[in-house]
Amino acid sequence: MKEAKGYAAREAGGNLSEFKFERRDLRPEDVDIEIKYCGICHSDIHQVNNDWGGATFPMVPGHEIVGIVKEVGEKVTMFKPGDRVGVGCMVDSCGRCEPCRRGLQQYCENGATFTYNSKDRVYGGVTYGGYSNNIVVTEKFVLKISNKLDFAATAPLLCAGITTYSPLKHWNVKPGQTVGVAGLGGLGHMAVKLAKSMGANVVVLTTSEKKGEEALRLGANRVIISRNTEEMKKNKISMDLIIDTIPAPHDMNLYLSLLKINGNMILVGLPEKESQYSVSAGTFVNGRRSLAGSNIGGIEETQEMLDYCAKHNIVSDIELIPMSRVNEAYVRTINSDVKYRFVLDMSTL
Amino acid sequence: MKEAKGYAAREAGGNLSEFKFERRDLRPEDVDIEIKYCGICHSDIHQVNNDWGGATFPMVPGHEIVGIVKEVGEKVTMFKPGDRVGVGCMVDSCGRCEPCRRGLQQYCENGATFTYNSKDRVYGGVTYGGYSNNIVVTEKFVLKISNKLDFAATAPLLCAGITTYSPLKHWNVKPGQTVGVAGLGGLGHMAVKLAKSMGANVVVLTTSEKKGEEALRLGANRVIISRNTEEMKKNKISMDLIIDTIPAPHDMNLYLSLLKINGNMILVGLPEKESQYSVSAGTFVNGRRSLAGSNIGGIEETQEMLDYCAKHNIVSDIELIPMSRVNEAYVRTINSDVKYRFVLDMSTL
Repeated sequence: MKEAKGYAAREAGGNLSEFKFERRDLRPEDVDIEIKYCGICHSDIHQVNNDWGGATFPMVPGHEIVGIVKEVGEKVTMFKPGDRVGVGCMVDSCGRCEPCRRGLQQYCENGATFTYNSKDRVYGGVTYGGYSNNIVVTEKFVLKISNKLDFAATAPLLCAGITTYSPLKHWNVKPGQTVGVAGLGGLGHMAVKLAKSMGANVVVLTTSEKKGEEALRLGANRVIISRNTEEMKKNKISMDLIIDTIPAPHDMNLYLSLLKINGNMILVGLPEKESQYSVSAGTFVNGRRSLAGSNIGGIEETQEMLDYCAKHNIVSDIELIPMSRVNEAYVRTINSDVKYRFVLDMSTL
Repeated sequence: MKEAKGYAAREAGGNLSEFKFERRDLRPEDVDIEIKYCGICHSDIHQVNNDWGGATFPMVPGHEIVGIVKEVGEKVTMFKPGDRVGVGCMVDSCGRCEPCRRGLQQYCENGATFTYNSKDRVYGGVTYGGYSNNIVVTEKFVLKISNKLDFAATAPLLCAGITTYSPLKHWNVKPGQTVGVAGLGGLGHMAVKLAKSMGANVVVLTTSEKKGEEALRLGANRVIISRNTEEMKKNKISMDLIIDTIPAPHDMNLYLSLLKINGNMILVGLPEKESQYSVSAGTFVNGRRSLAGSNIGGIEETQEMLDYCAKHNIVSDIELIPMSRVNEAYVRTINSDVKYRFVLDMSTL
């Protein structure tokens, strides 16, 4: 076993502090990665707080990981020491079910192995994430990262990037279409950049006028203040797709009514507690609208997204912080006081 | 003006009785149709009861109309006296908005003109439907009906047929896919026949064991008794598409959980009162599932459906009744005591 150090929460809702643990020895198909940067995703906070249930402690969060390959197992063909690589939300899956065979490992019918707080399907025990100095991952779940991209600012692409890229691609956004982005946080700001790069007319829906100004700076074409019901009503039947990143209950019928005929609204944020949304049949029937959800993206698609971002020079807007400030960063993330992602600098561990 | 006779309700919830009224004179683009048969759709009852608001009286319901062309205007090129024709839920639309230009007249942004209880956009006044001896309709909204089809049993195709055909086509049902049909009434029994004819593995979801037996007779491959929560849970992640014809609130999360990854559930029934359904974000996100709705079909697609049904010899299972039994038929329809559509014989007027 290899020694590793990182930051862990010891109990639900507890602060994170230094933690020593072990990573598995390198197996033939494994890649040993020295972690350079790791993003703070809002879901890290949900997991530490056990908002979704199933939390095990100590927990080392982190699934927006970039680093440098240190060593590879003898069967590894895609990576060599010195390569820039990334690891996202998953480190394994069954590989046999229909979704896995179609490259949709995130929907693995036997349960994907997530990067932390997940049962390791091969080695037993629980997975530990990226708030640490190294990680050992099977080659199939390691991504290549172009040297062109700012390394620290690339980390959030591994979750916030793919989570918004995947539905934009799956629902086939085309130049000239109108894409609504509801909520302007870590996911929302990536959705704006990505939809814009695909040629869409991007409209940000936000409750905050200040965020509205920021949205325009990020490249949005237009802003709707969603608290203003009149403004929402004026924009009925105007959008082809809405990427809904709002992680709290909101009036779904009002948002759905913004969709054109055949329009789709895609949920990508999960609220703190599993709450129920209220929808009316008429909203769907009178316009062939649909409400759908999307969860991160498959491994092949994540690589495609990273290559796309390198080509279009897209990274996240980040605030780079030392490991010691992680607890403060959690509080600020909860208060939406970050533009738009904290990234932990692992050299400060 | 031309004299017409039919049956009308005089007030919300009132019985239907004989009614004399006028149809407009034939204009150059009009087709004058002698109505032979008209189906009783559950929405006729909703309209008569003013369940959805906006009812005007006297109301002559009926939008599953088949008949024989009596006379055509001078600009009519597609029809001649003696032709078998049909009229469905719409008799006009704006023709200029994007949905109209794409052949989706049912989603006309300026409001389609429905066959009854709708403002006539050209002639003023209110439209009167098919519980009558004749109707005058602009050529573009008249459908051709093959001589191969049983005429009376074809009437319900104009609403129940197209309402279920359209989502099966739009969501691209392919041979070997599993299609769930929730509810086995007028819409459900057409969904079973149509999905089966497209090569799908058809699974009927019903609360009633008796209806389950009927479903197998109609061609369903399998039945799930939906009250049996255990049975529902055993069928998780098994269906590509669900056509949901249930016109009353039901546990949407339970039904949505039956969908495979990328699966779609399509609402085609509108409940009595506009009620809210409760859905959880996780059901959508964890499997890229979607909930959508679909409303009848466009005119071109309705013609396509009629031609498809002629080719595959598909009609509705009906109970043919004289006009004088319409009020009794309404009561029996409300009690689901019909297999599967009442059709009024206009020769009995």
